[in-house]
Amino acid sequence: MHLKEDTIKSELIFDGKVVRLFKDIARLEDGQEVSRELIKHPGGVCVVPIDGEGNVYLVKQFRYPFQTVLTEVPAGKLEAGEDHRQCGLRELKEEIGAECDEFTYLGCLYPTVAYDSEIIHMYLARGLHFGRQSLDEDEFLDVIKVSFEKAVEMVMAGELPDSKTQLAILRAKILIDKERA
Amino acid sequence: MHLKEDTIKSELIFDGKVVRLFKDIARLEDGQEVSRELIKHPGGVCVVPIDGEGNVYLVKQFRYPFQTVLTEVPAGKLEAGEDHRQCGLRELKEEIGAECDEFTYLGCLYPTVAYDSEIIHMYLARGLHFGRQSLDEDEFLDVIKVSFEKAVEMVMAGELPDSKTQLAILRAKILIDKERA
Repeated sequence: MHLKEDTIKSELIFDGKVVRLFKDIARLEDGQEVSRELIKHPGGVCVVPIDGEGNVYLVKQFRYPFQTVLTEVPAGKLEAGEDHRQCGLRELKEEIGAECDEFTYLGCLYPTVAYDSEIIHMYLARGLHFGRQSLDEDEFLDVIKVSFEKAVEMVMAGELPDSKTQLAILRAKILIDKERA
Repeated sequence: MHLKEDTIKSELIFDGKVVRLFKDIARLEDGQEVSRELIKHPGGVCVVPIDGEGNVYLVKQFRYPFQTVLTEVPAGKLEAGEDHRQCGLRELKEEIGAECDEFTYLGCLYPTVAYDSEIIHMYLARGLHFGRQSLDEDEFLDVIKVSFEKAVEMVMAGELPDSKTQLAILRAKILIDKERA
């Protein structure tokens, strides 16, 4: 079959808390055998929380791979067997202390398709009710509030480089523009 | 300092062709020590090529982590010391056989910020001149052409799940809408 690769061998190299790494051998359509490095990750969910005044809530946290603080939409990793909608509602509560009346699916993204099977689901949360933040024990973050228009400008100006944050905000914008049209 | 993690120890677990995996120990702001898994990748560039008739060129290829064919914008990995603009022009030529008169930077994305330091740069290519595809020896892909409006619809309908593809198309749309306004 055209554009198909068959796995000949798969070796688990590292079984971590966050990722598993495999080194596989695959056969290409011309018969040639190549190595394929593969990261497996449980996947995650992110949420664009917008209040009645049109403000969006973002979180700032230290991101180890970049050795800097990044500003992102609230998000988290799927727990074993957890539904992505439930995970999104849980993260909204944990990270910004909010519940919501409306929770709209914005689609998903595959962050880095060449070597990682992670999938991130995106939601838009509206009709927010605030309670209390309840973070994981190894999690530290600050919450900021900006107008949704400002968040879109921040995406376009390169101030929010995280892929899920950019995409969830732009897809929310296109959805909201369409609802208003 | 608030929201800062200090690296206590860093161990290289795997040194591959595509990724390197490190297992680090970091000290959080409350003094607690935690493990951090970290993928390092050379980074990449993707290109949205739009011709004079408003068509965009996309590539279909087998993506090993998903065991399926995905449709994406042309893209590739940075070679050692390569400038991202040169890399984008090279990939445009290799994957769809095109050169261009205009090559506009669309910003970058960090695909998966929790555990991977990869950065992908995005460009918009206009004024296309076609020659010949010249793929890497382990690369097989098909090129398709759709209207740019159709590509935006495909993003919103979930038909192009790859993060760089979605984001480069939506950021190109916002840029083009602004130029026309």
